[in-house]
Amino acid sequence: MQSHSENIRLSGKKVSFVPTMGYFHEGHLSLMREARRLADEVIVSIYVNPTQFGPKEDFSKYPRDFERDAQMAGSVGVDVIFCPSNEDMYPAGYQTYVEVGQVTKNLCGVSRPGHFRGVATVCCKLFNIVKPHCAVFGKKDFQQLAAIRRMVTDLNLDLEIVGMPTFREPDGLAMSSRNVYLSPEERVSGLTLVGALKLAQKLYAAGERKADVIIGQAQRLIAGAPFTDIDYVKICDTATLEDVVDIQGEVVMALAVKVGKTRLIDNSVLGEELRA
Amino acid sequence: MQSHSENIRLSGKKVSFVPTMGYFHEGHLSLMREARRLADEVIVSIYVNPTQFGPKEDFSKYPRDFERDAQMAGSVGVDVIFCPSNEDMYPAGYQTYVEVGQVTKNLCGVSRPGHFRGVATVCCKLFNIVKPHCAVFGKKDFQQLAAIRRMVTDLNLDLEIVGMPTFREPDGLAMSSRNVYLSPEERVSGLTLVGALKLAQKLYAAGERKADVIIGQAQRLIAGAPFTDIDYVKICDTATLEDVVDIQGEVVMALAVKVGKTRLIDNSVLGEELRA
Repeated sequence: MQSHSENIRLSGKKVSFVPTMGYFHEGHLSLMREARRLADEVIVSIYVNPTQFGPKEDFSKYPRDFERDAQMAGSVGVDVIFCPSNEDMYPAGYQTYVEVGQVTKNLCGVSRPGHFRGVATVCCKLFNIVKPHCAVFGKKDFQQLAAIRRMVTDLNLDLEIVGMPTFREPDGLAMSSRNVYLSPEERVSGLTLVGALKLAQKLYAAGERKADVIIGQAQRLIAGAPFTDIDYVKICDTATLEDVVDIQGEVVMALAVKVGKTRLIDNSVLGEELRA
Repeated sequence: MQSHSENIRLSGKKVSFVPTMGYFHEGHLSLMREARRLADEVIVSIYVNPTQFGPKEDFSKYPRDFERDAQMAGSVGVDVIFCPSNEDMYPAGYQTYVEVGQVTKNLCGVSRPGHFRGVATVCCKLFNIVKPHCAVFGKKDFQQLAAIRRMVTDLNLDLEIVGMPTFREPDGLAMSSRNVYLSPEERVSGLTLVGALKLAQKLYAAGERKADVIIGQAQRLIAGAPFTDIDYVKICDTATLEDVVDIQGEVVMALAVKVGKTRLIDNSVLGEELRA
């Protein structure tokens, strides 16, 4: 993969990259279409990275379907699918990790210790292997995108990070490979995430600037639905991802909620259009 | 620097790199000569990296002489000297670090907490900026070389790491920019480091395989000289850098000794010729 990419670069062509854990949905395809638009050679990786899963998380049961993924990627013009093995990525003796600071501490960093270390490390490795000029990520994983951008800037990686809007189901549920875990009843409860974001946008548009007021109403909306167990509902500065008390500059409302056994996340920058 | 290197690479030429903290001696020049031999474009960085110095170490008084360095580098055919500022390398908001595990824990990792995190991080950044095909390091910093090799392998950095033999003064003292700190009397005591290595080689050649026996004699030799304060005298597996009790495979004797206020290090792989 590395020498293929190096040769493409040496031929003067542009390489774009979409790192994924596979089990594609329309959200992934929207990233691949953007990657297709941006470069001559589009490379997609499919790798369910063990180092970003906690010991009690869903690494082993994370959904996988390579044949379906390959067909979908082909339909949007992807040139190469890169599927390394765990032995390729973390051979015996492996011992190097990339740690991003502040932006990984809040939100999912609290409930998923080690998660962003795993994400930053695997993305650093994949960028070094695939050598893209640009890499395309979804904004649904807002904190992941912030951590990757920070790592790329801090470690002087020579590529551009492109963030794309969250792709949603017709009813507004943010697309996620984990949505397949939801029962029909849980799925209805899952809609409270986007409902809470819409409510927050409405309050913000009406002039509310106290974060705790907006958060309180969002929490009540989610907690009122069955099967929901809130991990966090927060309003954070988009640059530092630190909690905000009085909303001034640009802030994001970020949510993580367990619906049944499935952990869902969603977010929206207050004042930006929520396409749902 | 990054776009210069990218253009050199795109023109099909080979780039070699010698990262340094400046204040050149013959050891540095031997690395640059090797770099010259290996590539079309030779790039040397001079950067006294603050993140690899502890709060009580000699960051502020580390010797610097750019004019002299530039002349010496020019004399061995270096094409580019890259001298980033601290603001270039660690701008406001900087928060990403590369951590190498096992091989950084023993030896200098014990007495210089955070040192190898700083070394790995700055080398990762410099490799991403300079984009070399190969980078040349001295073997005097044995553990540094091991940590860099490990990082390059683990993070899939696309460059070759070349290790060069320690360059020594005519009397055997390993060359170091810090040797200028030594008084004439301290310098004599500093020779006990290479003396201890020679003694260890002699004992090893005579069949001694108990690490504590060799270490004990080496320690006595060093401690017998004035101004010396031993940080460590150890015999370690060259792959893991873990302490060895009964010498089997390839091992290195590694030393760190304060002579007056100056911390000196040296090492020798037992059974390999010690050129001193």
